[in-house]
Amino acid sequence: MSVLSETGNKSVRVSLGACLEEVQKKTPLVHNITNYVTVNDVANALLACGGSPIMSDEPKDVYDITSICGGLNINIGTLNERSIEAMLIAGARAKELGHVVLLDPVGAGASALRTTTAQMIVEKIHPNVIRGNISEIKTLAKGTGTTKGVDADAADTVTEDNLNDMVTFVKGFAAKTGSVIAITGAIDLVADADVCYVIRNGRKEMSRITGTGCQLSSVATAYAVANLDHKVDAVAAAVCLMGLAGEIGWKRMQEGDGNSTYRNRIIDAIFNMDAKTLEAGAKYEIR
Amino acid sequence: MSVLSETGNKSVRVSLGACLEEVQKKTPLVHNITNYVTVNDVANALLACGGSPIMSDEPKDVYDITSICGGLNINIGTLNERSIEAMLIAGARAKELGHVVLLDPVGAGASALRTTTAQMIVEKIHPNVIRGNISEIKTLAKGTGTTKGVDADAADTVTEDNLNDMVTFVKGFAAKTGSVIAITGAIDLVADADVCYVIRNGRKEMSRITGTGCQLSSVATAYAVANLDHKVDAVAAAVCLMGLAGEIGWKRMQEGDGNSTYRNRIIDAIFNMDAKTLEAGAKYEIR
Amino acid sequence: MSVLSETGNKSVRVSLGACLEEVQKKTPLVHNITNYVTVNDVANALLACGGSPIMSDEPKDVYDITSICGGLNINIGTLNERSIEAMLIAGARAKELGHVVLLDPVGAGASALRTTTAQMIVEKIHPNVIRGNISEIKTLAKGTGTTKGVDADAADTVTEDNLNDMVTFVKGFAAKTGSVIAITGAIDLVADADVCYVIRNGRKEMSRITGTGCQLSSVATAYAVANLDHKVDAVAAAVCLMGLAGEIGWKRMQEGDGNSTYRNRIIDAIFNMDAKTLEAGAKYEIR
Repeated sequence: MSVLSETGNKSVRVSLGACLEEVQKKTPLVHNITNYVTVNDVANALLACGGSPIMSDEPKDVYDITSICGGLNINIGTLNERSIEAMLIAGARAKELGHVVLLDPVGAGASALRTTTAQMIVEKIHPNVIRGNISEIKTLAKGTGTTKGVDADAADTVTEDNLNDMVTFVKGFAAKTGSVIAITGAIDLVADADVCYVIRNGRKEMSRITGTGCQLSSVATAYAVANLDHKVDAVAAAVCLMGLAGEIGWKRMQEGDGNSTYRNRIIDAIFNMDAKTLEAGAKYEIR
Repeated sequence: MSVLSETGNKSVRVSLGACLEEVQKKTPLVHNITNYVTVNDVANALLACGGSPIMSDEPKDVYDITSICGGLNINIGTLNERSIEAMLIAGARAKELGHVVLLDPVGAGASALRTTTAQMIVEKIHPNVIRGNISEIKTLAKGTGTTKGVDADAADTVTEDNLNDMVTFVKGFAAKTGSVIAITGAIDLVADADVCYVIRNGRKEMSRITGTGCQLSSVATAYAVANLDHKVDAVAAAVCLMGLAGEIGWKRMQEGDGNSTYRNRIIDAIFNMDAKTLEAGAKYEIR
Repeated sequence: MSVLSETGNKSVRVSLGACLEEVQKKTPLVHNITNYVTVNDVANALLACGGSPIMSDEPKDVYDITSICGGLNINIGTLNERSIEAMLIAGARAKELGHVVLLDPVGAGASALRTTTAQMIVEKIHPNVIRGNISEIKTLAKGTGTTKGVDADAADTVTEDNLNDMVTFVKGFAAKTGSVIAITGAIDLVADADVCYVIRNGRKEMSRITGTGCQLSSVATAYAVANLDHKVDAVAAAVCLMGLAGEIGWKRMQEGDGNSTYRNRIIDAIFNMDAKTLEAGAKYEIR
């Protein structure tokens, strides 16, 4: 269901299915400094996709731990002074080793500490990938935002009407930062300076589960680690994977099931995903 | 199945179903400073009931975060020096803004730190709602308790035999603190100075799952936020909701299922609850 | 399916089923200082097996908390400076009271902090039980290791080929430390200085779930607490229980299920286990 537009593509694209198979082949080890709310699901989602998780947020531990990994997933969902210090130490070490670093700026715009911490990580660590909702990404891009808690403000939403402008915005922010930028919502955008994947997988019910965004960030880190020469495609594959898992998981819901069972079914669907299913189910265009 | 006794009712009661519908309509944003054991289930239970969760326990973050919320749920289940400081900052700010503050004094009576922290929060923050088991509430009321770990001591249990005394006790403690007091166990009591809901929903197997009490505290916060003029009724509605979800979840259990599946089914039942089901299934009387 | 070899047995063995029944009868209260990744599953697994969990990692809280428990489970999976201090305080107090202390040295060998912390706990606290994968245990025994993240290095694996040597190694390390040593992997070894249980329960798919090892450590603590005079047998019973639960849980998997559902089914199987099922399903020999 992919529609390949060649405009602006400066590198040869790889298929999403090929990205998935690299992950399953390489079992990338990902160091996660992440929030304690969704951390168990993050670990199980990483294992489900074929990666391997390790968690550590003690400043005296993270240098060693990140050194043995292939990527670092920084999520500021329940940041504190100690974990911020750990993020900076681990981030610097990971970049020094050429590891993939992903930033998930949870709640940037909702508090001064979150906004300044996310900005500081962008400036000091230069993450390879930044994944957030539109309010969080706008906060990073423009220094202001209207994040409503940890969810995006409706006024910011990516829609069919503002899609062209949003594609321009996300490519511009990717060019400015040198990072792959992933904005997730009803329509997802994954861009580097040159190309933008516009992705329409997923279901609105996923917002009734905590942590699908956090899971995606860790899975996207694993995807980028296993596909170093194709990071934008790899992150797009992870975004399609997560959305498609949400669709497949929903199909298995039965009378009386709710968000807790849906959470399990989504991770289960990641676990069972193969390249063929991902290719057949991914709904995207490239701009 | 409600039995309305008018004795002592100084305000007009609202129906439990009306309380539920206000939550689903308003999507109250609740700031949780809570333990890392059950925090994921707390977030999913809040989402299930129609609320929206945000977690933050860093002293430098909580002032901003609680400011954008409607309520604050303080749970001391895995308290530490940093989170205690955060509780006091967030609590003071929330009260300043007229937000609902709920205290769940997990393990008060089991350690000096838990007892003194819970007492300090009661004295300094004056929470609108206090929810705990009978041992925890007795510890707060009398300065002593026989909490057995995080579970209530059998000697303290609310029974049909001591019910009259317990209703008097809980109303008295509500009068003294100015808080709605919720004591949960085999029989649940939810009281302000004037009325006491005596609730007989729930199943004993719920005690074989970690965190149903923590989930209830966050859901009760959302209910109180969405029903500011009827806090005692709203908290009673949340207690009935949780107990009824335990009953509905149990009915869906199959051969070979255990406490992990039961956990999912209870949150699923919260997700699927509507006003009519809650009204039909709630088992309470008002004294 | 047990094969009792009398060689080297200096004490009368008790049956695994008897160990299980003691746990269900006594409801041992276990204090856990454990990682925030798998802590919820740890609590539910403890409840499932018939124990009762309490979590606390604040230095000012753990002395009181561990005093009211029967055992202490120390897991360094997400250690930090504060929790290390708490481990030492709680560990010293637990030993003073004659409580069972178990150490799960998660990631020993993967970072200097983890290795030195685990070594320090062994030296200062003398845990009654140490449970880890082969890389972690080798790190403790030899001061070096090749831990790959939090998983064992393939080069270290216990196999049929090196089994005799490994049995000698684990008995020797048990003799040196005075602890019951449990090494878990495809083949599990549980030994004191005199006897070694060689256990062949479990499924390889369990490694695709986070936290089965952490769950086992907490359950093994409860088993040892309830069977103080038969610690090596009790820990072996817990290891068989966990592996057998993995087998039973797997049999209940349906089309489309993955690791998240498998997680639930394993805990469910622990919940439903009885002595007869454990005795019939345990696959072990004693050397």
